[in-house]
Amino acid sequence: MTRIWVINPNTTEAMTAAIERSARAVVAPGTVVTGVTSEIGPASIESHYDEALSVPGVLRAIERGEREGVDGYVIACFGDPGLDAAREAAAGPVIGIAEAAMHTASHLGRGFSVVTTLARTIGRAEDLANHYGMQRFCRGVHACDIPVLDLDTDPDARKIVTEACREAVESDGSDVVVLGCAGMASMCAPISAELGVPVVDGVTAATLTVRSLVAMGLGTSKRGEFAAPLPKDYLTGG
Amino acid sequence: MTRIWVINPNTTEAMTAAIERSARAVVAPGTVVTGVTSEIGPASIESHYDEALSVPGVLRAIERGEREGVDGYVIACFGDPGLDAAREAAAGPVIGIAEAAMHTASHLGRGFSVVTTLARTIGRAEDLANHYGMQRFCRGVHACDIPVLDLDTDPDARKIVTEACREAVESDGSDVVVLGCAGMASMCAPISAELGVPVVDGVTAATLTVRSLVAMGLGTSKRGEFAAPLPKDYLTGG
Amino acid sequence: MTRIWVINPNTTEAMTAAIERSARAVVAPGTVVTGVTSEIGPASIESHYDEALSVPGVLRAIERGEREGVDGYVIACFGDPGLDAAREAAAGPVIGIAEAAMHTASHLGRGFSVVTTLARTIGRAEDLANHYGMQRFCRGVHACDIPVLDLDTDPDARKIVTEACREAVESDGSDVVVLGCAGMASMCAPISAELGVPVVDGVTAATLTVRSLVAMGLGTSKRGEFAAPLPKDYLTGG
Amino acid sequence: MTRIWVINPNTTEAMTAAIERSARAVVAPGTVVTGVTSEIGPASIESHYDEALSVPGVLRAIERGEREGVDGYVIACFGDPGLDAAREAAAGPVIGIAEAAMHTASHLGRGFSVVTTLARTIGRAEDLANHYGMQRFCRGVHACDIPVLDLDTDPDARKIVTEACREAVESDGSDVVVLGCAGMASMCAPISAELGVPVVDGVTAATLTVRSLVAMGLGTSKRGEFAAPLPKDYLTGG
Amino acid sequence: MTRIWVINPNTTEAMTAAIERSARAVVAPGTVVTGVTSEIGPASIESHYDEALSVPGVLRAIERGEREGVDGYVIACFGDPGLDAAREAAAGPVIGIAEAAMHTASHLGRGFSVVTTLARTIGRAEDLANHYGMQRFCRGVHACDIPVLDLDTDPDARKIVTEACREAVESDGSDVVVLGCAGMASMCAPISAELGVPVVDGVTAATLTVRSLVAMGLGTSKRGEFAAPLPKDYLTGG
Amino acid sequence: MTRIWVINPNTTEAMTAAIERSARAVVAPGTVVTGVTSEIGPASIESHYDEALSVPGVLRAIERGEREGVDGYVIACFGDPGLDAAREAAAGPVIGIAEAAMHTASHLGRGFSVVTTLARTIGRAEDLANHYGMQRFCRGVHACDIPVLDLDTDPDARKIVTEACREAVESDGSDVVVLGCAGMASMCAPISAELGVPVVDGVTAATLTVRSLVAMGLGTSKRGEFAAPLPKDYLTGG
Repeated sequence: MTRIWVINPNTTEAMTAAIERSARAVVAPGTVVTGVTSEIGPASIESHYDEALSVPGVLRAIERGEREGVDGYVIACFGDPGLDAAREAAAGPVIGIAEAAMHTASHLGRGFSVVTTLARTIGRAEDLANHYGMQRFCRGVHACDIPVLDLDTDPDARKIVTEACREAVESDGSDVVVLGCAGMASMCAPISAELGVPVVDGVTAATLTVRSLVAMGLGTSKRGEFAAPLPKDYLTGG
Repeated sequence: MTRIWVINPNTTEAMTAAIERSARAVVAPGTVVTGVTSEIGPASIESHYDEALSVPGVLRAIERGEREGVDGYVIACFGDPGLDAAREAAAGPVIGIAEAAMHTASHLGRGFSVVTTLARTIGRAEDLANHYGMQRFCRGVHACDIPVLDLDTDPDARKIVTEACREAVESDGSDVVVLGCAGMASMCAPISAELGVPVVDGVTAATLTVRSLVAMGLGTSKRGEFAAPLPKDYLTGG
Repeated sequence: MTRIWVINPNTTEAMTAAIERSARAVVAPGTVVTGVTSEIGPASIESHYDEALSVPGVLRAIERGEREGVDGYVIACFGDPGLDAAREAAAGPVIGIAEAAMHTASHLGRGFSVVTTLARTIGRAEDLANHYGMQRFCRGVHACDIPVLDLDTDPDARKIVTEACREAVESDGSDVVVLGCAGMASMCAPISAELGVPVVDGVTAATLTVRSLVAMGLGTSKRGEFAAPLPKDYLTGG
Repeated sequence: MTRIWVINPNTTEAMTAAIERSARAVVAPGTVVTGVTSEIGPASIESHYDEALSVPGVLRAIERGEREGVDGYVIACFGDPGLDAAREAAAGPVIGIAEAAMHTASHLGRGFSVVTTLARTIGRAEDLANHYGMQRFCRGVHACDIPVLDLDTDPDARKIVTEACREAVESDGSDVVVLGCAGMASMCAPISAELGVPVVDGVTAATLTVRSLVAMGLGTSKRGEFAAPLPKDYLTGG
Repeated sequence: MTRIWVINPNTTEAMTAAIERSARAVVAPGTVVTGVTSEIGPASIESHYDEALSVPGVLRAIERGEREGVDGYVIACFGDPGLDAAREAAAGPVIGIAEAAMHTASHLGRGFSVVTTLARTIGRAEDLANHYGMQRFCRGVHACDIPVLDLDTDPDARKIVTEACREAVESDGSDVVVLGCAGMASMCAPISAELGVPVVDGVTAATLTVRSLVAMGLGTSKRGEFAAPLPKDYLTGG
Repeated sequence: MTRIWVINPNTTEAMTAAIERSARAVVAPGTVVTGVTSEIGPASIESHYDEALSVPGVLRAIERGEREGVDGYVIACFGDPGLDAAREAAAGPVIGIAEAAMHTASHLGRGFSVVTTLARTIGRAEDLANHYGMQRFCRGVHACDIPVLDLDTDPDARKIVTEACREAVESDGSDVVVLGCAGMASMCAPISAELGVPVVDGVTAATLTVRSLVAMGLGTSKRGEFAAPLPKDYLTGG
């Protein structure tokens, strides 16, 4: 049996539940997916500041997972917060949802458009596209201007995101869409049906990537950069 | 039930059988993997010329698969021959083993080394790394100087490949190895055990990628570039 | 005397005749240019699929040329199909028309726009620009939406292509145009006269590049990657 | 009067004192430089994990500085931890020492070599070079294999670092050296004297960059990405 | 005392006076800035041709400065004419205003727009952005279509430049502006005030960069490429 | 009849004569090649400083050529001095020998090595490779450490250059050589014969490129950047 934790780096439990549902829907029997809510940090992640303060909670969740023998982890926020640090802390694979979504999208067409929440998060998505080697595939990052926590409550959210996706595909000349927030996972199928292009949700993509890595017996290389961190003194700051 | 065809672009059936074994070993119940040998082209692929002449056989196999309702395809040669054309011809996803191996390796460390067969194939692997956006991760491509069809028969093959991997990791300062030939799939686990770094085989990586894409309901975008080819006259050349 | 074969990778003889005329118009006495129609493959090339199936015919033409002592070859389709394989098969130089046109255009201004036939071929032109190092110079690839074989028969073709070139130069801020199809060769001079910018046709550019290489005694390096392919068994597929 | 805080992201006060000395030595009268030790996080930063856990302390220091009306900040660890988040939190400029050192070195020659502490930090320095556009200038990153906190206590440290610099310049063909740790600041002048090439210390470079920005009335753009973070709930994790 | 010469590569003395004023306004006591007008070359620089013919005058000014013991130099034209040659000729640092402005702008936001004079100078600014590694930050170069020498005399100049900056920020999605001509230096503060984004003037940025380098004891590396030129015969051409 | 001037940017007439011989040897009847020695500048070009001071002489030669109705120009120094300015000044095409050699070499193999004269010129060759989009093809630039003017007089020159080429091909894993100085043109054939790889001389490559452009009726685009320079006052400096 393979155990995968999908860590929600923000502290909003309703969002974790939705993420867990999405992830569970795609795995085959024999894999148990558990959504885990971070215990430290912001209620939603919409800035570099929020993201930075979410990382200690992500790492704490991973350290708990390691003690419980979890096989692999998904970091379920499109900024992939703490990914490198988490790879040092975990024995098995750790995948970010932006990472998985972008790689997945690159298999499906000439180029993809990302639709994210607030405009101020566009830069982070561009940085990640560069970091993962996806700059040729990522033809544009666009904001729908809905705050993360409103995705679930705003009755017009899906319609607004759909229109943002449609405009992105047109203006970028792209043939694939990437949803740029874990809170958009449930919109994936209906938007694809409406626009007629593949739409990629990072939560499912990352969960299946972790599962595939575990099936192949692969995890983060422990030769050098991503070896376990050296033990040292930490001030917890009170 | 998901049906995946793993197409061996060369005409050597023994190699298809080995490839099929590797692919079947990693899929969960509910997925049926079938190895398919190309009916046209070279006995092994060790040049641009061989690769070019293998493509019509790959496309013929895919057209047969489409008639039989296959869900997705792996192209099991490290040059990923005919990948773009195959994506036009198939309704479902098509993944090359170089593509899958390189993407997979990029999740596991700072950078990978590729170990391939003959030195003359190094350039193609470099081109693919660039094409997939993996140039930052691909720290070097190295030849072990064993012809493809000797990988299975040369009693020293595994030892030679292992040493080539060891030297590649040292000289490139890499922390992951990618095996650059479908014929090396069975060497993956023992080399990893000996070197202590993750070793990625493209056949299993591509098979699991196809399977994940099918699980998410994703296939090649049919908007524009990868739409089905227009019907037109073809001279078969007699 | 220098003998150059200009190979038309599609099987449409009327197009070969036009290509041959363009190429002959620019060479000096002492060079004999012969248009050669491929004997296998599609009637026109407008997809990755068409292109893949045109390559065996290109290679067969080159093998015949080698037996006849031809000095160099042009591959006269803007996708440069089979270029790497052809370089292995030929002793002398082989140049693709996209390759020659893009390099030529880079000598003439800040950046060029490519105008091609159907929109689905844009991606291939972008890939080639990247492959040849021309991404900085290639400011955009645009479709005129005329199928290849209609370029010769549609009475509005030249007007439509001219307008596409005019719009491309404006929207890209470019100062040079590259015609993205061998079938546009005869439009080169009138479009340049009308727009007042240099317009590059790949057929003439490639023919002159081959001629220059032969004059310098240069051909594809046979050290390593582009050495003649190893002899091996090929199934012809019946 | 300009007030600059040089924040040491680790919790080792002796290191802060040395950093403050370096920074004070280069500023003109009218600028007051204060070293500030982080109150949360690791005693030294030698991994992605350490770096991630140092960020909340950096942000807390900046928030204190904002209340006290500080004009600009230096983040004095070569991983530039929390730089983007800090730019959101501060009204004035924030500069990382890797950022400043690499930019400075690019003004001085064809290319620079970085000499850092432990080999596992090389990847981070490479990522930063890419992020800042310095990949053409950064010809190599090399480790001297001395832990950060031993730089000050190991009597052979300077000699070892000097030799690592000498070898880096030779093997990279570079003409400038960048010291890859705030703890190496005091070695800058003697190494330069011994090797005969410019040696750049990021602490002084960043301090002077902040001072120049303040003199020009420039700070982080508050249009969009780096605007102040939105107010929201944060769990502090107990 | 630090002596910096700000060299105006064109021969228009009124422009030198304005440049000197801008530079003097930002340096601390202890630094003496002197504007120097080139004695050879064009009255303004608005083409590659003008720029090429301005270089001998820049070098002559630097040679005079060396005889007088000047500590460092600014080349105050946005094409950075003769920068590499000047670095060979001078013992201390030499900085171009495009170089300094672009580096400075990269510290302040996600990306900058450059607003220059005539459209024909756009290409040079793009080349410099690439050369300095700033292509990711430089989101666009735009012309205001005012000749250099009219910046000072056209009563609408500031308004026109301001509008060009406003449009550039909108169309590029940038958050910082770089003024692309030394003759725009005095417009920096009012445009920033009007647009609400940081606006960078290269003259002050370069002057402060030189000053910082001198404060750190840093100058161009004399190991290899930028060593003093070898003595040899020069024809002066009469 | 086509008239091409091959401009030697240094003032050494013996070198002009050798360059003219090389260029004349490859052109077909109907093309007249004339070597032209610059009247202003250094006796040889071995630094950025030398190169900068050679440009006015190159431009003066082109202006004379324009008055005499010359069809196109080669700038016969491997730093391609003044190329952009010359393109503004001339109505027909202007090609640099580094430009032509690198483009030519890219048609012949996987990658080329450049062998130049003094080590201090390596950086300029790297910059040009980047500028022309040839960075993927240019696998290394190497010095033979022979001053330009000794290439003709040192009896061991050819042997030393040949050995430098041999070592470059080995260490770079390249399959083509580019000679990095106009003074090496006569060595091209014997080095190729000895090493068994194509060796490219820029003088002949550039001459044939100009001739091909003229045959196609192509010259520098006069739309925008490379239009004739605006008339203005120039101080000649006395």
